[in-house]
Amino acid sequence: MFAYRSLRVALLGAGTVGSQVARLLIDEADELANRVGARLELVGIAVRDPDAPRDTPLPQELFTTDAESLILGADIVIELMGGIEPARTFVLQALGSGADVVTGNKALLATHGPELAEAAEQVGAQLAYEAAVAGAIPIIRPLRESLAGDRVERILAIVNGTTNFILDRMDSTGTSLENALATATELGYAEADPTADIGGYDAAQKAAILASLAFHTTVPLASVHREGITEISAAEVAAAADAGYVVKLLAICGRMTDPDTGEDAVSVRVHPALIPRTHPLASVRGGNNAVFVEAEAAGPLMFYGAGAGGVQTASAVLGDLVAVARRHVVGGPGLGDSAHAGLPVLDIGKVTTRYAISLDVDDQPGVLAAVAQTFARHGVSVEQLQQTTSDESGRATLVVGTHTARESALAETVAELATIPAVASVASVLRVEGAA
Amino acid sequence: MFAYRSLRVALLGAGTVGSQVARLLIDEADELANRVGARLELVGIAVRDPDAPRDTPLPQELFTTDAESLILGADIVIELMGGIEPARTFVLQALGSGADVVTGNKALLATHGPELAEAAEQVGAQLAYEAAVAGAIPIIRPLRESLAGDRVERILAIVNGTTNFILDRMDSTGTSLENALATATELGYAEADPTADIGGYDAAQKAAILASLAFHTTVPLASVHREGITEISAAEVAAAADAGYVVKLLAICGRMTDPDTGEDAVSVRVHPALIPRTHPLASVRGGNNAVFVEAEAAGPLMFYGAGAGGVQTASAVLGDLVAVARRHVVGGPGLGDSAHAGLPVLDIGKVTTRYAISLDVDDQPGVLAAVAQTFARHGVSVEQLQQTTSDESGRATLVVGTHTARESALAETVAELATIPAVASVASVLRVEGAA
Repeated sequence: MFAYRSLRVALLGAGTVGSQVARLLIDEADELANRVGARLELVGIAVRDPDAPRDTPLPQELFTTDAESLILGADIVIELMGGIEPARTFVLQALGSGADVVTGNKALLATHGPELAEAAEQVGAQLAYEAAVAGAIPIIRPLRESLAGDRVERILAIVNGTTNFILDRMDSTGTSLENALATATELGYAEADPTADIGGYDAAQKAAILASLAFHTTVPLASVHREGITEISAAEVAAAADAGYVVKLLAICGRMTDPDTGEDAVSVRVHPALIPRTHPLASVRGGNNAVFVEAEAAGPLMFYGAGAGGVQTASAVLGDLVAVARRHVVGGPGLGDSAHAGLPVLDIGKVTTRYAISLDVDDQPGVLAAVAQTFARHGVSVEQLQQTTSDESGRATLVVGTHTARESALAETVAELATIPAVASVASVLRVEGAA
Repeated sequence: MFAYRSLRVALLGAGTVGSQVARLLIDEADELANRVGARLELVGIAVRDPDAPRDTPLPQELFTTDAESLILGADIVIELMGGIEPARTFVLQALGSGADVVTGNKALLATHGPELAEAAEQVGAQLAYEAAVAGAIPIIRPLRESLAGDRVERILAIVNGTTNFILDRMDSTGTSLENALATATELGYAEADPTADIGGYDAAQKAAILASLAFHTTVPLASVHREGITEISAAEVAAAADAGYVVKLLAICGRMTDPDTGEDAVSVRVHPALIPRTHPLASVRGGNNAVFVEAEAAGPLMFYGAGAGGVQTASAVLGDLVAVARRHVVGGPGLGDSAHAGLPVLDIGKVTTRYAISLDVDDQPGVLAAVAQTFARHGVSVEQLQQTTSDESGRATLVVGTHTARESALAETVAELATIPAVASVASVLRVEGAA
């Protein structure tokens, strides 16, 4: 075959994704060389324990514990270790030495993205991270480049496969969160410690990355409002289904106007929400991911596919690698991300959306009026109010659907509703998204 | 504001898309400058008649009939004239002078793609064409770059909004093709002469572009098998619905093995097909487009959005423009497409798929056996055979579902079925795609 030049590729980490990337680099070496115009030579894989058992058999001589030496001799470094340190130090080292970096490390990007972007820009190196959000689904590149001439207004995204699997299972079988989580763990959709997923932490990292790109604004992870799905009950899911909705854990990134100052701003939040069954996101089943983007000129777009999985995510890493390597071959610096817009990220209290509130109430005269007055007092306009007939205990369920209201006003309303004597409990408060 | 350098942008054509691009270039000049790191100065718009009425008001002094002079002074040329000539000459002229080119011209790319790619590569210029396929949906860039490290196995795509609108309307209202087309024309979904759309010509051009990119192979337009929707009847659509299917005009690009030589090959075809209602493409309604990609590592991915419309397509053009301009600013040549795989494109006769055949037969003993024998004689395995009870005229409908069979064998079968005396007519032959 044609004698291509070689690019030295160093891999940091050989977990589920890393070992698949290594395997594909070896198995598809000739094909990749043709696509890049240079051979991608995997010169080493830095791991903590070279003798640890691996799912994928890889040449033992590639393994090393000396990440620093490996990085120093590389043209391109692929970082798939996860976590903040030592990943951050290694990536900065690689960029500092002029190597291009491909990473799938969402935690690192969500917390140190601007630092890494600046390091890359200073030396004209490339930093690519398609694998960090929504696994195999190409979403970073479309946001970075395809929509670069448009204005993204809003992103509604299902970016965590574990929680989507759980909520989908609750929806389709009527089971409890606990049971659905057990099934997810059994089938490999959930990790032994599921906190990062069901607590919304994983989705919040991805939301920060998406929002930063979409709005050309640095969005610190700490400014992302985060709620997990741990409080979602089978009853809530069933009630949503009856009303034509489905409960999804959404990452929502939106442009808005600061209601207090009138300035342009953005809000970024992760929480369970009701979406109409007719919305394209409602049909995202099982462990899949999807990113629904509303852009000013392009209109609504959706990107759908597998959100996780070693080989699927490896596809995203290799896509980045080929693009980065081709650029490395033809020369010229990488295209940096820009945070030129620098919009303020608003507190959740300033966000406006619609709500569905479910109350357990005593079925007695005046309850409805008291509830309605409470909403009115806080300026929250009620669109719909529905009361079930009471059971033998004299309890009824009152479901209130609001028009668009400010989050802070809703919170005050809910706090006051709980103090009404005839209101036994506020059973559920869910935001409604994606409705016309 | 910061004093950026300027890039001279020339626009060829001011139709629906072109005038929106011009408007956005003018209205969003400051924002685009921030994103690019250079001002994008629209230096002129070449049109046939500068005094023709336009939907979008644009500065009259920008218009010129002298495209050649405009191109000579430009850093980036946006070609939105459509058609082969003079677009081809202008694009080659632009690339020859070292300018980067952004085009949305599917006819030009489908027929002269390799020539343009070579011209760009010779001078290291960029050639971008996201707007040529599926309007605002980012699909060219994901195929070119995000999936560059993966192996695309198959693409099933709805790339023509007019026919999707018509088929969707037939499906949802039960109306005829003629009526649905009339509605499409009335609502602006179909042009006065709808041949390019309903004949499948537009979709065939897009299929050639998608397949060339996905398989790293030059796919000449002439090798794309093309059938339009003109023969689709309300009865076929209704029967499909009863059986849990929906009729869509699909562009199908697949890797396959040549059944005669055993060599790797591809096939590219456009025709109406039945797809199960549970398939993600089945939910693509109205004038929307969607591209469903099956890649070896990434698994199934879907890209969904508006397939046409001036401002939507303008989004794709501006995305390309910003990406191309950023590359222009930082330097370095464009990333060319590669046709290194050079796979043969097989004739439709070698393709294998499943079929649903509907026959009008005389309800008499022996018909079923004669039909079954005909299928058997040509090696086409029948999966399902269903006969309606005959009406008062003694006619019944026989619906045959086949297992996967070779197209040539199926064609011979159908030809022979028509010669059976008890078979009054072959009412419908439809391919079945996307089924498990």
